Amino acid sequence: MSGENQQKRQIKLGAFLMETGHHIAAWRHPDAHASGGLDFAHYAELAQIAERAKFDAVFFADSVSVRDTNLPALSRTARADHFEPLTLLSALSVVTKHVGLIATVSTTFNEPYNLARKFASLDHLSGGRSGWNLVTSSTESEALNFSFERHPEHAIRYERAREFYDVVAGLWDSWEDDAFIRDKASGVYFDPDKLHVLGHAGKHFKVRGPLNVARSPQGWPVVVQAGASEAGRELAAQTAEVIFVAHQTLDEAQSFYRDVKGRLAKYGRAPDHLKIMPGIFPIIGRTQEEADAKFAALQDLIHPTVGLSLLSNMSGGVDLSQYPVDDPLPELPETNGGKSRQRLLFDLARRENLTIRDLYLRIAGARGHQQVVGTPQSIADQLQQWFEEEGADGFNIMSPWLPGGLTEFAELVVPELQRRGLFRTEYEGRTLRENLGLPRPANRYTDVAKQLPATFSFARSLA
Amino acid sequence: MSGENQQKRQIKLGAFLMETGHHIAAWRHPDAHASGGLDFAHYAELAQIAERAKFDAVFFADSVSVRDTNLPALSRTARADHFEPLTLLSALSVVTKHVGLIATVSTTFNEPYNLARKFASLDHLSGGRSGWNLVTSSTESEALNFSFERHPEHAIRYERAREFYDVVAGLWDSWEDDAFIRDKASGVYFDPDKLHVLGHAGKHFKVRGPLNVARSPQGWPVVVQAGASEAGRELAAQTAEVIFVAHQTLDEAQSFYRDVKGRLAKYGRAPDHLKIMPGIFPIIGRTQEEADAKFAALQDLIHPTVGLSLLSNMSGGVDLSQYPVDDPLPELPETNGGKSRQRLLFDLARRENLTIRDLYLRIAGARGHQQVVGTPQSIADQLQQWFEEEGADGFNIMSPWLPGGLTEFAELVVPELQRRGLFRTEYEGRTLRENLGLPRPANRYTDVAKQLPATFSFARSLA
Repeated sequence: MSGENQQKRQIKLGAFLMETGHHIAAWRHPDAHASGGLDFAHYAELAQIAERAKFDAVFFADSVSVRDTNLPALSRTARADHFEPLTLLSALSVVTKHVGLIATVSTTFNEPYNLARKFASLDHLSGGRSGWNLVTSSTESEALNFSFERHPEHAIRYERAREFYDVVAGLWDSWEDDAFIRDKASGVYFDPDKLHVLGHAGKHFKVRGPLNVARSPQGWPVVVQAGASEAGRELAAQTAEVIFVAHQTLDEAQSFYRDVKGRLAKYGRAPDHLKIMPGIFPIIGRTQEEADAKFAALQDLIHPTVGLSLLSNMSGGVDLSQYPVDDPLPELPETNGGKSRQRLLFDLARRENLTIRDLYLRIAGARGHQQVVGTPQSIADQLQQWFEEEGADGFNIMSPWLPGGLTEFAELVVPELQRRGLFRTEYEGRTLRENLGLPRPANRYTDVAKQLPATFSFARSLA
Repeated sequence: MSGENQQKRQIKLGAFLMETGHHIAAWRHPDAHASGGLDFAHYAELAQIAERAKFDAVFFADSVSVRDTNLPALSRTARADHFEPLTLLSALSVVTKHVGLIATVSTTFNEPYNLARKFASLDHLSGGRSGWNLVTSSTESEALNFSFERHPEHAIRYERAREFYDVVAGLWDSWEDDAFIRDKASGVYFDPDKLHVLGHAGKHFKVRGPLNVARSPQGWPVVVQAGASEAGRELAAQTAEVIFVAHQTLDEAQSFYRDVKGRLAKYGRAPDHLKIMPGIFPIIGRTQEEADAKFAALQDLIHPTVGLSLLSNMSGGVDLSQYPVDDPLPELPETNGGKSRQRLLFDLARRENLTIRDLYLRIAGARGHQQVVGTPQSIADQLQQWFEEEGADGFNIMSPWLPGGLTEFAELVVPELQRRGLFRTEYEGRTLRENLGLPRPANRYTDVAKQLPATFSFARSLA
């Protein structure tokens, strides 16, 4: 079923869905579903738009806390409440047939047995469409909801994540693919020789197994990652099949692409078994002027309280709320946090003679992702260039507002990519893995050559 | 909307769904869906049968391990693999409109923030139909999947469960019901005064909050429990709104009912705000002979390996596999485990001159729940008696095989109960809570009289 190697390389597309849209003021857009964050019909519509346009997957970020610390600003955004992704994606599996379903779940605040089980369950529910975006979480506010005194350090989080992944992948192999016989006449339900105990005992976890869910349609749900640090890149090279990443320029994207793909060989992996998909924040007009006007209208919806809070977050805590927002940026002493980014922002303001408002508008768009404001043709040109010049295998589309922003991408940009032969017109396969052109992992117990020394059979350990 | 106090007391019904059915050999029944455990269409059909018959809820038990330790016996049952309940119920929320969705999740192997969030999310997905069956888990095999050296002791599990519940309920109150304004014109999304930090710091957990999900349609999802120990009864009296329980006789049921309802007053709770629902395992025939024949046919499907394993489990480890299964029970020395139950079984076999097979068939049916084999009328008679003589507020129906066993109950017994005025013909309300006749909890922050001293506002702690 898999189309890999049988056809021209094509762009992969994810729809990164976020409440009412990625723009910080999206919910105020006249066409946005302001209460979309907890409205299943809203998400069902979005997933169906993505599926009609042949997107590979819908993708949900996640955090396990109310994210912001500036309450007046937070109360003017739609970021404080939303569905839990695994429950939402399970429901979405019923109203879709083809599109992949990728949820973010943290290795820092969960147990591997629970996580392996839920993603396997979603893979069965959806007929092989589940994906796990492995994150280690990075905010103190999350740690405080999980009995930590403070957020665990980066190195510890990555060490735990690496072991967590091993346990999860091991549990996904508990049952061989053909373990279940279900012969009513003889009364044999499964072949006991095809059930395996993991018997994991490591630094962070001790997990016996086996998993109480049969091996899932994809063997393993697709593993996605987003970390761009050195530890993140190395973990991705070992374990990830898709990377979501933020780049501002093609140069940056190419450098990351070369670096990460170059790390695969030492783990015995082929370069096309890891798909790199930067985020793209598109504002689409039938003309450039229309696109610019749309963007300006969205920017106008940013309340100064929200803009100043963004500026404070991005500059390591500088408080500008006492100054007139349309005056030039005043001279300020440097604060303790994030000095280099602070200096960058202040220099930019000086150089271009920006007011405080100009400055926060400049950073309010795509949160570090590539922001493209243009016509379907000019946007397709840029995606094509990044794709053909090895900056990307595909893109994670961050629609500014929803549902309209996604509809426009689906109706205007996708057909342009299809006309150029850069994007599918029909799904190649039945599973997310098949559509992405990723191999189905062999079960470690079935493929004797790959059998791990630490494993032993359920019969021997439990009978 | 709630019908409580406005009409005659009526029976509540849950459909306790388990893979291919509750009988240990259910999957071998000619009409059973043998691969139902991981087939969403199977569960969608079951939930829709329950909803057409106006059941209050579907209910899923759960454990987080492969349950059995006798592999040859386990491999002849359909008990080793199944969906994870929260993902399954989220998907079922899409194909149903009225029936409640109750999932079992353990307080021993989860974090309260994750759990509060998932059930709130399911409550939003389903328009107010979620319920949480709080269990502390009781098997060593589960503990070994969660980095425990051995299963935590009963008292510790209950202490943790009590605190876990407090955290979860507190998080469900993070947002007042009318916190979200979403006024596009002014740009105010929520009222910051209506967001509250929990600030819990206890023996087992330190959880700041707030929850990143708005207060759900039911305020709090319905809380269900099943523990019958002294600690279980006391926890239920404080916190449960539904109890699932196993009784063999009306006497036993009445004694439990009186005991638990009698504990409510000291917590300021009304007796009808806790519904007691024993499990019932019904085999239904148009005549008694037909019912008896159906049961005998199911019993015939129990393989001796499975029967002997059940007998060994129920008698604390007696191994009878070396003896001819159709010979009388031999004289045996007592073993270490479960002496009283062992003696009970051995005495029963002597008294009635039972073979080994007779003995395991005697215990193979309802796993300690009430087994009723009869006509729709005789079964309705018994439910009516238990209900009217205060042994039960309703019943959790454990269909022997699925889907047929549930269809028969829905088509034959439910109409008989309706003719007698004992069961609804239309849903009374919109939510599970309304249908069960349970009050919607007031938010602790909105109702100032009930405000807890330890709580403080998000604004004060984070702004």
